This record gives sequence, structure tokens and C-alpha cells, in this order.
Amino acid sequence: MTSQCPAPRREEELVLLGHGSGGRLSAELLDTLVLPALDGHGGPLEDAALLPGHPELVMSTDSFVVSPLFFPGGDIGSLAVHGTVNDLAMRGAWPVALSVALVLEEGLPLSDLRAVVQSLGKAARAAEVPVVTGDTKVVGRGAVDKVFVTTTGVGQRPGALRPSAALARPGDAVLLSGPVGLHGTTVLSTREGLGFESDIASDTRPLHRLVRALEPLGRHLHTLRDPTRGGLAAALNEIARDASVAVEIEESAVPVPQQVAAACDLLGLDPLVVANEGCLVAFVAPGAADAALDAMRSTPEGRQAVRIGEVLAHGPRGRVTLRTLVGARRIVDMPLGEQLPRIC
Amino acid sequence: MTSQCPAPRREEELVLLGHGSGGRLSAELLDTLVLPALDGHGGPLEDAALLPGHPELVMSTDSFVVSPLFFPGGDIGSLAVHGTVNDLAMRGAWPVALSVALVLEEGLPLSDLRAVVQSLGKAARAAEVPVVTGDTKVVGRGAVDKVFVTTTGVGQRPGALRPSAALARPGDAVLLSGPVGLHGTTVLSTREGLGFESDIASDTRPLHRLVRALEPLGRHLHTLRDPTRGGLAAALNEIARDASVAVEIEESAVPVPQQVAAACDLLGLDPLVVANEGCLVAFVAPGAADAALDAMRSTPEGRQAVRIGEVLAHGPRGRVTLRTLVGARRIVDMPLGEQLPRIC
Repeated sequence: MTSQCPAPRREEELVLLGHGSGGRLSAELLDTLVLPALDGHGGPLEDAALLPGHPELVMSTDSFVVSPLFFPGGDIGSLAVHGTVNDLAMRGAWPVALSVALVLEEGLPLSDLRAVVQSLGKAARAAEVPVVTGDTKVVGRGAVDKVFVTTTGVGQRPGALRPSAALARPGDAVLLSGPVGLHGTTVLSTREGLGFESDIASDTRPLHRLVRALEPLGRHLHTLRDPTRGGLAAALNEIARDASVAVEIEESAVPVPQQVAAACDLLGLDPLVVANEGCLVAFVAPGAADAALDAMRSTPEGRQAVRIGEVLAHGPRGRVTLRTLVGARRIVDMPLGEQLPRIC
Repeated sequence: MTSQCPAPRREEELVLLGHGSGGRLSAELLDTLVLPALDGHGGPLEDAALLPGHPELVMSTDSFVVSPLFFPGGDIGSLAVHGTVNDLAMRGAWPVALSVALVLEEGLPLSDLRAVVQSLGKAARAAEVPVVTGDTKVVGRGAVDKVFVTTTGVGQRPGALRPSAALARPGDAVLLSGPVGLHGTTVLSTREGLGFESDIASDTRPLHRLVRALEPLGRHLHTLRDPTRGGLAAALNEIARDASVAVEIEESAVPVPQQVAAACDLLGLDPLVVANEGCLVAFVAPGAADAALDAMRSTPEGRQAVRIGEVLAHGPRGRVTLRTLVGARRIVDMPLGEQLPRIC
């Protein structure tokens, strides 16, 4: 308000779409604004948090704002269950209970609401987790786009697995449970009517049974993460940062379905930054890699599991690199902002 | 689509503002659409649910969509903490952990977001509950109105108290911890610029310490409920329904601040249906009523606690009546729909 301060005033800055991308802008918003206000601990940001006083229980929450509500392979209801079940599973937990909070737009057809809630209930039953409580708010037309769903889950860790983003170690094998890019390209193609959606479908599905299949690995399983917003690039960068290690993956080893590659070509997107909702990356001790791959492949969700890289013994900490098909190396950066808004 | 079916097609029905009111339309939506899809148990709908396998833990979730974001006495951040802490407290639980999910509108000033999150953090610290995990999504301009906040809480019951809406019994004294109508009239007056907001403020505050003060009552404390959406009328009707009892209150005993009465007169509102965010009703065994009132009045939150009525020994089950100042009786109905949208 005074002329003594010519620098741009921080208070005039605005929320950008990129602040919700799961990339660098998201991390910055968290680090500079949200976590300081909420006494964030400054440790690794995990997919789910330990419940104070109950070390066997973890808790995770996610708001789902995907547009459109329905897409090949899923809808906002099933996605809201899978997303939260998977965040719990990435800490080695089995889901115990879900809560569901709906915000509805006045004028939404009840048939759409019914379809969403029925899909949500079906997905919860399929994942064997009860929805124990919920909330429904309605706001006027234009105050929300159709339906937003927030699911929160509590999960129980059986004790065998204690994966954490901070536990990746040099020498670890980097495993991927399935192909990447399906969810993001399907939602985007459906929303924009690009036509790819007739050939591809979201990979949305629960991963807790896949994680349970990994229990025999015990503490040899160091880290799990599902590469959702920001894709594989964001997931690997988070792990590299939190564990302070150098990760290298082989371009030729990362399974990218042909239709995903075609859609990404058209859109100028790197498949590595496209959101997934039904695969995970696992960092395991080198001696346990084959057993982990066998365990993953024994489940429907992990049938196409592959080894895509490793944690380098020597390398720049916090960095992710890709060895290309022709043998060159390039840095896989943390995505900056929002390439695919409202993808989950 | 055929001419053989002249009746209005259910599938063409739309979500109405009243479906989020906490009144009869809300109950109908829950009973006919949401709960069947989610395998709702059909029992009493409590403020918080027991966590399967962990009978000492309860869970509750709420989305907050209040407009405006800031109002005398509070804001969406503090409200989101108090609302969830209080839902846990109504089951006799102390909050153990909160999760926070934000949906932000592109273009929101970061200063507003900072103010909301800082208030949320301050309220959580004041309530002595950690925010353990969260999520942030950003949607395009017009896809959400500024900020919606969903908080989910897990609470622990020390064992002394096991209140439930189903446990109210004939003869119970009905106690109210403080005056009614402040939150709803404050938010509405602020939003519409009615002018009352200069003299009144929301009662938003955490009630878990007040509930802890009631622990010596043990099982003599039958039922707790905080009369939020739908106000005292909805809370008493829910209890009358779930416990299958007749509740009668004295009009003269219900404390309605003068400014609330004036605002309600102007707006044609019954103060009994206006939302509160800082008081509770308690149903206690008749012999324990005085001790309960003393305990409540020993806390800052319950200083103005009063006895407002009783559960009738004989009376129509599920019905709430009011004895008016002139001695007549009138039925206090469950509010139908939405009189005060986006109040919490």
C-alpha cells in the first residue's frame, strides 16, 4: 500500500493450477506455507502417516476432483477408494476403515450421484474395507463442479513390512508392477475427446493385495510408492530426495503401452510424468529382487512387473537419471507444475 | 424414454440444496441412496463411527464449505478443526490425529490460503491434536468456490464414556451447554451484510474438554450431540428417533441471545434450526443431572449450561415437543431442507 516497497508483494501471489500437480510447485506450497502452519515435521512426506500412540495404524486422506466423473476403466467413486487404499498400502498397511465426504453441486442428476456412490461402495467391498462414516454437503450451482469426493483411510500394518521413502539404499533394485501412463492419458483423452479412450482404460485398482504378496520380503522391501500425480518421475524424485540417493532407470525397461505412447506424442507429454492409479514402484535389497518380482507376478495386479533400474552406489544424491535406448543419460526432473489438471 | 411411463422418472431428479441441510431431505438422501450403496448398517447415525477391530477408537469426517471463509469468531480453518474434534467428542473420544484435505480454486490469493491454514494449525494446537497427513488439490477457476476443507479425525475413548444417540431413556434430563443460534446467524449476517455481525460472533470452539469434564458421570451420561446443521431441532429429533423416545423442552429454558433472536425475527428463522458450532446437548440420567450441570459449568465452554427439558416417561416415540412461554405445546419438527446454505 506504500510506495516504499517496489518488490512484488508476496501477499498478492495467487494459487496456480500447478500448486496441485504433485510436482515442484506442490512441494514448494507445502514446504513454505502449509507445513509451517501445521507444524509439519520436516521428515519424508509419506503416502500415509503413523497414528500417534498406535504405531501399527496409519492414516491417509485424498480429495478427488477428477473430470470427467466417468471414464474408461473407472470413475470418481472407484478412484476415491483405490487412491486411499493404495496410499495406505504404500506403508505396508491393510485398510481397516474408510470415511467418505461428498461435496455436491446443486442440480447434479441424482442418477449421477447414485452411479458414483454405487461404484464407490462396490470398490470398497472389492477391497474388503468398510465405509464407516461420511458426510454430504451441497453447494449452489457453480460453487463446485458436479462432485468432489474426499476419502480418508485408516490401515493396519501387520508388522512384516515397514516401507518408507527414506529407506531406499544404494544397490537397491527398482521394480515397477505394471505399465505406466494409462490413467492420465485415459482421463485426458476422455475429457478432451481425443479418441484414444476407445483403446485404453485407466489402470485404477487396489494394490493392497499386491503389497501383501510382498510380505515375505520383510525388511528387504525398503520403499513403496504409487506413481499418481506427477507420474513415475515425481515418485522416483521424491524417493531420491527423501532417501538422499541417486536412482537410475533404463528407458527400454519402462513399459509404456503403445496407445499411451501415441497419446503422449500427440500431446507433447512425457509418459514418465503421467498419472497412474494401479501400479507401484518398489525398492528392494538387491538379493531380494528376484523373489520380489516373482511375488508381484503371482498377483493379477503385478503380472507385468519388471525391473526398471537401481539405486546407484555412487551418484549425485537426490537425482534421478534415465539411460536412453541409445545409451545416453538424461536427468529425470521433478515435474514443475500441472500438465494434466484434475486427473484424480 | 417411452410414453408408457408418465410418472416422473426418478433418474431425472436432481440434487437440491436441501439435501445438504442436515434435515429431512438429507436423511432421505442418506437412507435411499447413500447408505444402501455403502452397506450402511441401518443403526443410529452417530457423529463418529467405531473403528472395526479397535473399539477404543472412533473416526469422523466432515467437508467444510462455509461462505464467507472468514467471519466474526472464526473462519473455515478453525471451523474445520472444531467440527471434527466435536464429532469425535460426541462419542466420548479425545482427538488423536487429524487429516486435512484442501481443494483450492485457481487464482485464490495465497494470503487467504495462508490465513486459513494458519488458523487451522492454531486451532489444532489449541485442541492439542496433531495434523498428521493431508492433501492439496487445485481446480480451475469456477470449479470450486475459493477453498473447501475436509477434515477427518481419529479419536480415542478413555472408556468412562460410551454415549450414543440410541441410549437416551425416559426420565433423562436434557442439558444444553450454552446459548444457541450464534454460528448460523453470524455467518449468514456476514455473508449477506445484514449488520448483526458487528454484535455477535460464531460460537465455534472445541468441546472435548467439556466432555472430559463429564467423565465422572460414566454411564449415567447417555447421549451427546452438537447441534450443528439443522440446529437444536435436528439434533433432538435425531436422538428422539434413534432412541425411540419422546423429548420435551421448555421454550423459556433455551438460551437465545438477543441479537440472535433479532436476526431470526428479521429472517423468519426459528432459532432452534440455526446451526451451532460450540455447544452440545447431553441426555443424562435424572439423578446425575445436577452433577452434570456442575461439571459443565466448571469449564469455560459450559459456563452457561442449563437444563432445557427431559425425556418423557410416556409420549409419542420419536417426537420432540416444545412447551411455550404460555404453557401450550407445539411439535418441533425435523427441519425439511436448507434454510441456511453453506453455514459450515
